[in-house]
Amino acid sequence: MSEWYKKKVKGVLLDITGVLKDSGPGGGFAIDGSIEAVKRLKASGLMVRFCTNETTITRKTLVKDLTNFGFDVSESEMFSPIPAMCSILTSCGLRPHLLVSPACLPDFSAVETSNPNCVVLGDSESVFSYENLNKAFQVLMSLDKPVLFSLGKGKYYRSGGELVLDVGPYMKALEYACDVTAEVVGKPEKSFFQSAVQDMGIKPEECVMIGDDIMGDVGGAQGAGLRGVQVRTGKYRPQDEQHPTIQADGRTNNLAEAVDLILAHIQLGQ
Amino acid sequence: MSEWYKKKVKGVLLDITGVLKDSGPGGGFAIDGSIEAVKRLKASGLMVRFCTNETTITRKTLVKDLTNFGFDVSESEMFSPIPAMCSILTSCGLRPHLLVSPACLPDFSAVETSNPNCVVLGDSESVFSYENLNKAFQVLMSLDKPVLFSLGKGKYYRSGGELVLDVGPYMKALEYACDVTAEVVGKPEKSFFQSAVQDMGIKPEECVMIGDDIMGDVGGAQGAGLRGVQVRTGKYRPQDEQHPTIQADGRTNNLAEAVDLILAHIQLGQ
Repeated sequence: MSEWYKKKVKGVLLDITGVLKDSGPGGGFAIDGSIEAVKRLKASGLMVRFCTNETTITRKTLVKDLTNFGFDVSESEMFSPIPAMCSILTSCGLRPHLLVSPACLPDFSAVETSNPNCVVLGDSESVFSYENLNKAFQVLMSLDKPVLFSLGKGKYYRSGGELVLDVGPYMKALEYACDVTAEVVGKPEKSFFQSAVQDMGIKPEECVMIGDDIMGDVGGAQGAGLRGVQVRTGKYRPQDEQHPTIQADGRTNNLAEAVDLILAHIQLGQ
Repeated sequence: MSEWYKKKVKGVLLDITGVLKDSGPGGGFAIDGSIEAVKRLKASGLMVRFCTNETTITRKTLVKDLTNFGFDVSESEMFSPIPAMCSILTSCGLRPHLLVSPACLPDFSAVETSNPNCVVLGDSESVFSYENLNKAFQVLMSLDKPVLFSLGKGKYYRSGGELVLDVGPYMKALEYACDVTAEVVGKPEKSFFQSAVQDMGIKPEECVMIGDDIMGDVGGAQGAGLRGVQVRTGKYRPQDEQHPTIQADGRTNNLAEAVDLILAHIQLGQ
């Protein structure tokens, strides 16, 4: 496991929630050392992209929140599921019933939503009421061939100091109720990582993904040919180190420590 | 499929919601012909038991509601998951966090619920909020070895004229979030059907289960060696007739029609 930073690294993909910052009221808070770590990565000349399943707010608000914390991040460096989802909806002529956080709705403004012929599920937090889940269920059951999209399939994340349910469990609920298999847009889908790697103009094996989610970040990245490194912040739990199917390429206490290892090796050898 | 009522029948198990009555405000409403059908079954001398996953109210209230409609039914004839669940909790020294309908709580009054070491999930309707599901999730995540019980695993049922989510989808949500497999108490578990058949003192192959749920009623009964007949009332959908794994032994438009077939054959041959 100690070898992950010794092989050539040309680019780094960073998860946001649980790595740069934790969720919570008022946009959450920056994780110790992460603001400086991003600065050092960028100053080193390595390619950097941000790869998030965050869909509770617009991409613009997310960048603004991060910038206010002091992070050096722009919209063009950020890969998140909603733009990919909108492309699919438009190109396939799909009109979604949206069960998403109201705060992310502006990112769907170009999409036609009347007379829905599919359902798009995002992390909706308290909007995940029985009534709202029923409504999405009823739309799916009214279709001859139900089509369900899920913006990521994360199990849970850390918010305000405690673990809370992410979109994945609700995706599983609707899959079971309607006998459908959701199409996931975002991590851990291979194509999602590939688009970020492609944008950097490097090969998957030259890229390290750093995240707190053993399945979405580590497993997903590995499935696309990247190295997957887990940080012990955010939703990390000691049980992740004995995951039955996913073995991280590396593990560090936080982002700063991961960046230290990458940069120390680059200075020595590359 | 036409043969199901020609083989010997000594006892009949009846589902309640979707067969005797539909759900809805004020206890719902009786399904046409069902009150008379139960009377005729009982008058014929056949054994009759009621086998329900209804957990939104106490068993006492359910019997009272049915009696008010005019049904001839007593508590001793009724098999429902909560008594079975309470026996398991008491005999295993388990203290549940209850995510159930407040109206069924009196049926758990003998159970110790402080310092919970398991979660019991019932059909909670509007109580299935994000906050309440999070709380159950957090209890499970706090346990070294999470234990989840589900009172049935129905996908949906008909209430107030529309299909609404049952407990099963929420069970699947927590299973996925916590990497656990729930223990189901109620239909379609084999032991649940067996206890009702045993109470009648007959053999499974002498018993017909009549229900509206292709999986919980028909598939469950068949798994326990009974015949499973689906009625085209309640949550029935035409798609059930092409179910990928479950083939009903028979199908009638409603309970009255199923009882007609059983009784006509008994008068002819038995």
